[in-house]
Amino acid sequence: MQLGLVGLGKMGGNMRERIRRAGHTVLGYDRNPDVSDVSSLHELVERLDGPRVVWVMVPAGGPTQSVIDELAGLLSPGDTVVDGGNSRWTDDEKHAEQLAAHGIGFVDAGVSGGVWGLENGYALMVGGEKEHVERLQPIFEALKPEGPYGYVHAGKVGAGHFAKMVHNGIEYAMMQAYAEGWELLEKVDSVTSVREVFRSWQEGTVIRSWLLDLAVDALDEDEHLEKLRGHAEDSGEGRWTVEAAIDNAVPLPAITASLFARFASRQGDSPQMKLIAALRNQFGGHAVESSQ
Amino acid sequence: MQLGLVGLGKMGGNMRERIRRAGHTVLGYDRNPDVSDVSSLHELVERLDGPRVVWVMVPAGGPTQSVIDELAGLLSPGDTVVDGGNSRWTDDEKHAEQLAAHGIGFVDAGVSGGVWGLENGYALMVGGEKEHVERLQPIFEALKPEGPYGYVHAGKVGAGHFAKMVHNGIEYAMMQAYAEGWELLEKVDSVTSVREVFRSWQEGTVIRSWLLDLAVDALDEDEHLEKLRGHAEDSGEGRWTVEAAIDNAVPLPAITASLFARFASRQGDSPQMKLIAALRNQFGGHAVESSQ
Amino acid sequence: MQLGLVGLGKMGGNMRERIRRAGHTVLGYDRNPDVSDVSSLHELVERLDGPRVVWVMVPAGGPTQSVIDELAGLLSPGDTVVDGGNSRWTDDEKHAEQLAAHGIGFVDAGVSGGVWGLENGYALMVGGEKEHVERLQPIFEALKPEGPYGYVHAGKVGAGHFAKMVHNGIEYAMMQAYAEGWELLEKVDSVTSVREVFRSWQEGTVIRSWLLDLAVDALDEDEHLEKLRGHAEDSGEGRWTVEAAIDNAVPLPAITASLFARFASRQGDSPQMKLIAALRNQFGGHAVESSQ
Amino acid sequence: MQLGLVGLGKMGGNMRERIRRAGHTVLGYDRNPDVSDVSSLHELVERLDGPRVVWVMVPAGGPTQSVIDELAGLLSPGDTVVDGGNSRWTDDEKHAEQLAAHGIGFVDAGVSGGVWGLENGYALMVGGEKEHVERLQPIFEALKPEGPYGYVHAGKVGAGHFAKMVHNGIEYAMMQAYAEGWELLEKVDSVTSVREVFRSWQEGTVIRSWLLDLAVDALDEDEHLEKLRGHAEDSGEGRWTVEAAIDNAVPLPAITASLFARFASRQGDSPQMKLIAALRNQFGGHAVESSQ
Repeated sequence: MQLGLVGLGKMGGNMRERIRRAGHTVLGYDRNPDVSDVSSLHELVERLDGPRVVWVMVPAGGPTQSVIDELAGLLSPGDTVVDGGNSRWTDDEKHAEQLAAHGIGFVDAGVSGGVWGLENGYALMVGGEKEHVERLQPIFEALKPEGPYGYVHAGKVGAGHFAKMVHNGIEYAMMQAYAEGWELLEKVDSVTSVREVFRSWQEGTVIRSWLLDLAVDALDEDEHLEKLRGHAEDSGEGRWTVEAAIDNAVPLPAITASLFARFASRQGDSPQMKLIAALRNQFGGHAVESSQ
Repeated sequence: MQLGLVGLGKMGGNMRERIRRAGHTVLGYDRNPDVSDVSSLHELVERLDGPRVVWVMVPAGGPTQSVIDELAGLLSPGDTVVDGGNSRWTDDEKHAEQLAAHGIGFVDAGVSGGVWGLENGYALMVGGEKEHVERLQPIFEALKPEGPYGYVHAGKVGAGHFAKMVHNGIEYAMMQAYAEGWELLEKVDSVTSVREVFRSWQEGTVIRSWLLDLAVDALDEDEHLEKLRGHAEDSGEGRWTVEAAIDNAVPLPAITASLFARFASRQGDSPQMKLIAALRNQFGGHAVESSQ
Repeated sequence: MQLGLVGLGKMGGNMRERIRRAGHTVLGYDRNPDVSDVSSLHELVERLDGPRVVWVMVPAGGPTQSVIDELAGLLSPGDTVVDGGNSRWTDDEKHAEQLAAHGIGFVDAGVSGGVWGLENGYALMVGGEKEHVERLQPIFEALKPEGPYGYVHAGKVGAGHFAKMVHNGIEYAMMQAYAEGWELLEKVDSVTSVREVFRSWQEGTVIRSWLLDLAVDALDEDEHLEKLRGHAEDSGEGRWTVEAAIDNAVPLPAITASLFARFASRQGDSPQMKLIAALRNQFGGHAVESSQ
Repeated sequence: MQLGLVGLGKMGGNMRERIRRAGHTVLGYDRNPDVSDVSSLHELVERLDGPRVVWVMVPAGGPTQSVIDELAGLLSPGDTVVDGGNSRWTDDEKHAEQLAAHGIGFVDAGVSGGVWGLENGYALMVGGEKEHVERLQPIFEALKPEGPYGYVHAGKVGAGHFAKMVHNGIEYAMMQAYAEGWELLEKVDSVTSVREVFRSWQEGTVIRSWLLDLAVDALDEDEHLEKLRGHAEDSGEGRWTVEAAIDNAVPLPAITASLFARFASRQGDSPQMKLIAALRNQFGGHAVESSQ
């Protein structure tokens, strides 16, 4: 089938390639003319046969909103828009309503896979009305990994991004789990090689996983991670997961601890620990503890 | 080679079987005569050719201590004892010294694998002196999974159990990660089938793992886990991991949160939340919030 | 001076009384005619001399919004509205803009004090333009406790509710601190009377506080809190504090743990712990731990 | 009455002064001859009339153990030893048994008060047999603050140090509560002066406390704490509190979070966050998030 694809960065560019390899026609648009197949969104829409399907793969928030605003004016009733970016699930319903007012369908797709996606396929979590999702099925088939897994129609509009967001929340806590274990093992003298311990865990253990494989790769490159600073960014999804949990009164202690550990990692000096230090100075508790 | 194996419960029994399949001779002793090959520890030691190797596979603490006490009296200089149970790493050095006083070697082995171990092999994390570990190599080869992983000589005496303990601590936080994500997904209406979301994650995602596969199996048996109570036991390793972290001043927020969640799950009514409720009653904060 | 007061519930009713005792004229309106001085908001506004000051003391969210909507239509340029309810600080700027379009000033006031406020005074955290805040000064003086504390002009519009929100977040973690300590002390046999330990802490210790005094009062009524269930509600401020922290990338581990403990306390059976239990069943880890 | 006091550091020295002011005779021994009343422990014991009471006020662990070892040899049946240092409660039972073998009584006393103790009195949490505790009553009266609070016979041997330990655990979480709130308030632009907000909280609020008063003092000296580094030490009691909680399966999320925050504050670069960073590099998740 024919697909319009807006946004040809690392993700979008590779996705265009994977969909083409599956035999579909992809017309891509990007602000960067070096990678773009057309010169404008207008041209993209013009050159697609109706009913059109346009996949939006641009950063969440403002950029996604402005593409959807523009598409709402360019597309025709019966066309369908897919938001495959990392939009907050709460944006999806707004976008669906905005487009529905023009007779345009909307599907949200959480996409996982990163740099391995081109070869191994992208895991897809999709939300939307059945009729809109079904139109996209050939594209989803092209993008997803081979085999029975890697694709789910998770529910109504927003369910795709919600599922992807929770995926990322889980990812935060899994990474934190390995990281805590690694630091503890590195700290004790009796363990000769933490890297070899991690490597051994790749088979026969309860904690074997793809993330563990990646950890071993990282330790093979730099056994004690001396070249890295202990600073970790966080993307919107981790924060949104905690916010969704608060909205739903669901306790999320491990995922939240993982998010906070990232916040703390980026602080040169912790303001809150300054107040702890100040209070200790005030009551002199630490000083007076040692008497003789 | 020839091995004495003390403790033929679920783990020990299957391990005897796997070692025998690899062509070794295993003489097993258990207090339960139905499964035991010999009638006493004394007979076990008598029937093994020297230098003997005896693998102890009984519960940590008292039971392990009493077997080691007995073996210290029965074995001869040059023999080797392996503790494959879930002993605390701090016990290992004591056991090593106790046995060394009799000229007996000691190796600690953390064993992972559970009910799948018989077929798939057991992951082994081993601590001890090189000469003692090397004597056991054929047995380790028999027990471990095929391929390059699943076995590590982690370091000095205690390092095997330490590595296994950290493995279990990581396991706690990984399980908690999936559990938190599952509860949040179950809570929102827009997601039609959480089970299908979990299933889809088994390929192409960052969070694919063996534990995720098990989660899907569990949800296939009971989609909303209605037959289970939300009570989770904890074994010593989770607690010891946090204690080791405290000893080493290593922050372990996600693993500790996972341990505490298990503690809380077993309380019918939370004492600490009674005091919270009592305080709220005292200052009437909640009541006065609603004015008009 | 003259004040219109909308909302005469437990908080509003007592505040009317305290302001009157200070010699000011308060005209109160409530939907409940038994406590109301006037029959409608319209009458309230009619009977106040300009420039009017109207204090809104109704539940946050919809009720506050609808009173402000109505006041925007009834009041005149130069009048001032105070929101003394528990509104989210993000609502304040909207309300200020909405009223400013009609030439009406806006002040937000976080109010603490509960049932003790009538006698001891209410702590006030106020946000808004200096000119609007100054008009209210006589009322703030009437409401606040005697002495140098209990009142702050915290900053711009929203700063009052933000400060009160953080106050409540701190309150959550302080209550949790005492509650955790209490449970631990109750758990050990060697401590004969936890109530007497708490009582003794009221002087000479680092942790003496008004909340501790309340805890002793509660334990005096019911030493082991046997009449209470361990269920604790949470108001919006605790949740908003965590959300504000996430927006600002500030780690808030203790306050968030306190919020999550309340969430968990209200769950009959924990869904997430069901998945933990299910995973444990799948790999049989707990069962296979005990061998002999 | 007459008291022997071993250890005349900041705490012991001030305690000697306060007990003397109450009219008792204190014979103090310290390794530092400048402050010591006697030249040796032996002389101290010689010069006390029987039945003697000796208060030990030296650092926990080795120093306390060696003083108790020595006293066990020097004292006579009927004498009583008080350990007023910060010993772990699990040491108390050992010390009680060790001394009981010589007919010597033992009392453990947790002491709070710091540099204010001399003037305001020391809060005392005491454990031991009734007969031994009663002998000390005049000294406890001299040390404690005036009024009905500040002293408790908490229970059996060990209960005094256990109660003091929990006191310190609660202290950690209360300090963390204020610190988290302070950082959040400092972060937002709308709040003009966080110091003034803290000051205002000293009356009429739910969170007023002695620690809050100290926080205001600290902010008065250095409003934004620019002269301090955000590094906080921890003493044994915080760690022991968490360990006691683990032994008793009591969840302690806020206290433990406070302990871990201190651990993290002392790390120049967080090892665990290096692994998080390494994993993010491996799957390139952060890079591929931004597409267009």
